[in-house]
Formats: sequence, C-alpha cells, structure tokens
Amino acid sequence: MTPTVREPRQERSRTTRRRLVGAAVDCLAELGWAGTTVGVVAERAGVSRGAAQHHFPTREDLVVATVEFLAGEQIAELRERAETLPRGKSRAEPVARMLLNLYTGPKFRAALHLWVAASGDDALRRALTPLEAKVGREAHRVALDLLDADESRPGVRETVQATLDLARGLGLADLLSDDSKRRERLVRQWAKTLEPIVGEGGRA
Amino acid sequence: MTPTVREPRQERSRTTRRRLVGAAVDCLAELGWAGTTVGVVAERAGVSRGAAQHHFPTREDLVVATVEFLAGEQIAELRERAETLPRGKSRAEPVARMLLNLYTGPKFRAALHLWVAASGDDALRRALTPLEAKVGREAHRVALDLLDADESRPGVRETVQATLDLARGLGLADLLSDDSKRRERLVRQWAKTLEPIVGEGGRA
Repeated sequence: MTPTVREPRQERSRTTRRRLVGAAVDCLAELGWAGTTVGVVAERAGVSRGAAQHHFPTREDLVVATVEFLAGEQIAELRERAETLPRGKSRAEPVARMLLNLYTGPKFRAALHLWVAASGDDALRRALTPLEAKVGREAHRVALDLLDADESRPGVRETVQATLDLARGLGLADLLSDDSKRRERLVRQWAKTLEPIVGEGGRA
Repeated sequence: MTPTVREPRQERSRTTRRRLVGAAVDCLAELGWAGTTVGVVAERAGVSRGAAQHHFPTREDLVVATVEFLAGEQIAELRERAETLPRGKSRAEPVARMLLNLYTGPKFRAALHLWVAASGDDALRRALTPLEAKVGREAHRVALDLLDADESRPGVRETVQATLDLARGLGLADLLSDDSKRRERLVRQWAKTLEPIVGEGGRA
C-alpha cells in the first residue's frame, strides 16, 4: 500500500520544513541576517544539517520561505479578524486600526533586518525583490477586501497604497520605543480618510 | 594675542570632527553598524585614532553625531528649497513631493542600518532614542512650516505626522528597488489630502 507509506513521509517532510522556518523566524529576530545560517537554524530546529540543506540549499532559500510564511500567517490572521468587523462606513476605524498596526511586532522586525541586509547584499536582494512584490500585492488585496473599497474609483488605489506605506512607516517609528499612543491618534484621524472609500465595493 | 592662536586650533578641531562624521556616513552606508568602529572611521578620515577618540570616545557618540549631522543637513536643504515654493494652495503638490521623497537615498539607508541594529543593542538604543525624538520634532516643525499649516486646527497635527510616517514607509519601499514611479502617483494623491491644511498658517 504505497499511499500509506508515502503519506507519513510527506507529513514528516512538512513538519521538518515547518520547524526550520519557525527556527529561522526566531533566529532572524534575535541574530539578524548575519547570524541566520542554515547550520544555526538546523541546530535550533533540532534537524540534521543534511535534512535542512535538502529543504533549503542556501540561506537565501531559507529566508525567502520564512518571509513567505510570515506574510501568509499575517494575511490569514487579518482575514480571520475581518469576519468580526461591522459592515458599511463603521468599518473604517477598526480597519484603520488593524492595518496601521500591521507592521508592529517581531515579525516586521525580522523582515526589516532582512530588507536592510539586502540593501547591501546582491544575492539576498535578488532573492527578496520578487517576494517583496508578491507580498506587497497580497497585502494590497487584503486591505482592499477589508475596506470593501472599489478600486475602479479614482484615487482609491492610491489611498489603499498610502495606508500600507503609512503602516510600514509606523512600524519603523515603533522599533525603538513604544509608539502605540501616538499611533492610536493617527488611527482615528486616518479612519476619516478611509471613510469615503469604505463599503463601496459591495463585498461586505 | 590669544584669540588668533585659539581660533585656528578650534578651526582644526571642527575640521577633524567634520571629517570623522563624513567618514562615518560613508562607513555606515557601506558596512552598517557592525563595521562602523571609531578605528575604521578614523582611518577612512585620515585622522589618528587618538584624535578620533578625543572627539568621540565611543561608537555610540560617533553615530549620534552622525545622525544629528545628517538630519541637520537634510532640514537645512528643505528650508532652502522651501524658498522657491509658490504661496497658497498651490504649495500642496510641491511640498507633498519634497516630504514624500525625504527618506529615499543613502542618508536614510545609513540611518535605517542604525535603527535596525539598535533594536537588538541596548547601548545603541539608549543613545538613539532621545535623538529619534529630537529629529522627529525637527522634521515635524519643518513640515509644518513648509505646509504653512495651522496646527491649532483639529486633525492638522495628525495629518502632518501621517505625512512624515508615510514618507518613512515610502523610504522602506524604495530600499530594494526603484519605487519612484509609484511614489509620484502617491504624491499627486497626497497633495489633495494636504490641500485643505496648506497655507492656513499665515507664514507663507
């Protein structure tokens, strides 16, 4: 019975991969790109170096998988929380809050380490550039869905983009000290910017 | 005649300091915080290690002076360019362009290296945190002046803050690839957000 033999092996392989990616998240947040080698991550994950290199031949492969994992997790979490949002214009403030708090926390910090390292490392930059575009598009799509905005209207696309760029700027401002009080005042103001475009998409 | 004897020495001291700070800017942009030691910077500046350590006893002292210098230069440049701006509502778009392009380029990249390093380095964080507050206040003041906005009106303070946070987010988005075309579309949209508050301060 080949399937029953193959299933657990695939399952084991997925588990190994997940453990490596999980260890890479911690490693990046603590040690940055410089300290995140396949060997160090394998040891943290309790996986043999050979098995780690089978999944991720290079450090770049490992961090690309890690960023994809973090971004995927964050987007899934946003979609889940979106289920609880009110409909119509009153979505504006809770959505502004969700989006402007998106890049605070250890996941953004781990990604930021990579982005800064990539600005001076060609191999890493080549690995991250297409991923940045992909993750950016996904974030844009989920923001559009959360806002229930109609992107065919003039200016809507730019307002959604500005929301995400603002959120990244707020992530930076939160890096060295707790900026949450100031951010909350911006959330309330930003909700007014979003109000005219919220709930016009006919989805929520 | 003591003054003529003291003047050149003070002048020499200022020149040494300027050379060290200039070398530190290049060093940070190329090598990041990890590679920016007082010794390396002194060698680049063609200054003796002893003289360098007289001016900057620690790496933290050196980078604080460097960030202050970069921020001061950038603000002076903004104020100079502000002289050429039109008055009234038509300032909105050129000011939006100046502000949203503020954090693109090698100076922001050098500062970003530091901020990311400081998130995992207590001594550096302690050195940068008060500076971040100071530089942030100065950027806010110059933005307010450029916009000629009246901060006593409700929401104006938050709109000015959002402009600078957005600019930092756009700086991040420009780190790995040229984001200038997308940014220019955001500038034109953002000018509409700024228009209601521009030229109400009675200064320009």
